[in-house]
Amino acid sequence: LAASARSPAPANHILAQRPHGAECLSNPCGTAPGLKARLGQTWLIALPGVPLEMQAMFSKHVVPLLQKPAAPAMLTATLRTFGLGEARLAAELGALMARDRNPKLGLTVAAGVVSICVRSQSPDLALAQAALDDTLAEIRRRLGTCVYGTGQTTLAEAVGQLLSARGRTLVTAESCTAGLLGSLLTEMPGASAYYLGGWVVYANALKTSLLGVPEALLEREGAVSQAVALRLASGALERSRADYALALTGIAGPQGGTAAKPRGTVWIALASRQAGAIQTTAQHCLFPGARGLVRQRAAQTALNLLRLHLLAGP
Amino acid sequence: LAASARSPAPANHILAQRPHGAECLSNPCGTAPGLKARLGQTWLIALPGVPLEMQAMFSKHVVPLLQKPAAPAMLTATLRTFGLGEARLAAELGALMARDRNPKLGLTVAAGVVSICVRSQSPDLALAQAALDDTLAEIRRRLGTCVYGTGQTTLAEAVGQLLSARGRTLVTAESCTAGLLGSLLTEMPGASAYYLGGWVVYANALKTSLLGVPEALLEREGAVSQAVALRLASGALERSRADYALALTGIAGPQGGTAAKPRGTVWIALASRQAGAIQTTAQHCLFPGARGLVRQRAAQTALNLLRLHLLAGP
Repeated sequence: LAASARSPAPANHILAQRPHGAECLSNPCGTAPGLKARLGQTWLIALPGVPLEMQAMFSKHVVPLLQKPAAPAMLTATLRTFGLGEARLAAELGALMARDRNPKLGLTVAAGVVSICVRSQSPDLALAQAALDDTLAEIRRRLGTCVYGTGQTTLAEAVGQLLSARGRTLVTAESCTAGLLGSLLTEMPGASAYYLGGWVVYANALKTSLLGVPEALLEREGAVSQAVALRLASGALERSRADYALALTGIAGPQGGTAAKPRGTVWIALASRQAGAIQTTAQHCLFPGARGLVRQRAAQTALNLLRLHLLAGP
Repeated sequence: LAASARSPAPANHILAQRPHGAECLSNPCGTAPGLKARLGQTWLIALPGVPLEMQAMFSKHVVPLLQKPAAPAMLTATLRTFGLGEARLAAELGALMARDRNPKLGLTVAAGVVSICVRSQSPDLALAQAALDDTLAEIRRRLGTCVYGTGQTTLAEAVGQLLSARGRTLVTAESCTAGLLGSLLTEMPGASAYYLGGWVVYANALKTSLLGVPEALLEREGAVSQAVALRLASGALERSRADYALALTGIAGPQGGTAAKPRGTVWIALASRQAGAIQTTAQHCLFPGARGLVRQRAAQTALNLLRLHLLAGP
């Protein structure tokens, strides 16, 4: 409260009370502290219920209390993938997915990212590690560039690392996602090293006035079209000093779909500089699901388009 | 799969099998169907575990099975508020917050929004409704414009409704939030009626080249300053036909803070047209918490600044 120059309300005083002998646990995300007390051999911990606060305080105060050396016989690792659906990915993994296999694989899906959690068990730590390493290598061999990272890495982080390593920069031109791609690219600190910014051209008038998409082209092809996506990407690149521009235009729904361009249709374009000239490429997508999912998948697919371009390039 | 022109993988065939006598439940968000079967007096329901798919299918298929006329004696309603912390809001509500009161109030917090859930119980439906209405009216009287909506309304929706009702339009200029505000404004369909788009000016070079912030001003005041926020907002308004422009510039952290401008410092500016001229106003904020929270709170506070301006205006 002092940091934000606010004076305490009566409820803050209640939050500041604690049982005799209990220790306060600091809250890095809010004003409600936690409590820690010892009852015989048992730790009693009270934490606020707000998930972000609870999670931060659990990591900070509770995990160190619980940590013993991990049982030597169990090791886990996670690989993150994008570009294959869960079912197709399971097919590629084949016998690796057998339920009684050791190391054992588990799949989870969120926003188009399929995570593969690998758990290796053995009476011997070195054997558990060797089996884990073998399985991870075999998964990478089968899935190739679909594997974009490990642990909790996001697709935006993976793209950021590739751009950083190559000293390249990116701008964005977003219609249907309206800033979501920029927001994902800047979730991690340090994004200013490779992300410069961009345009949100939700209204067609801004596609024309800010990025030079001809009105006649919008009229003839429609805002959701390969031609407009390519013009958005090249227009963004021309108006910045970035090395790459990603553009998205689509029908997130629920309204706006037609037989020719159903809800979920998204065009994604990538523009890059090559020998002074601007090169462009575009990808057509049709995403299932509700508005929010279509937008998430569209932004992620744009990141993946750039990732594959960076991996393939010199 | 047919809709997205993909051919089924072997795992999709497994997903298509069902026990004899069981009925398939359609999945609006994915390819895995659910199952419904009757065992004596009991419904057996199997749904996929992906939360978004499960939730959509639960609402569509399971809730109608379970729905009986609600007990006449219990009614609930939710008011959504922004601008007062949980503790201060509880202080304003005073005796209304008593734990043994009927109707009873409960508070939850997410991204700066404090939701007040009111539960009214009575043997008589009309009495429960009257008591609920009285309590809701008393909360609104105590909190005034802090109450921005009911039910699941987001702050962006509330702002969208106000803009729509007045036939006004909005552009955005985002630095620290880098598109998050535009993304929030377009989460609901129909946003094109009032949101035109905007600029993501993450790099200082783009603040200058796209929105005309003088380099000397950036040098003298720093990118996170009242002067730069005001120039971003007026620059955005000048370059569009919108009625309002919201601009954000801040230090989301974890790095970049100084003693004078600690992490969490954000300047938010609003520009509007009045009698042909551009009027601007700015708000200084200091948000606690991690990078993601600072960005969320900053975007929400910008929406609230515009909301209060619209409510106060003609």
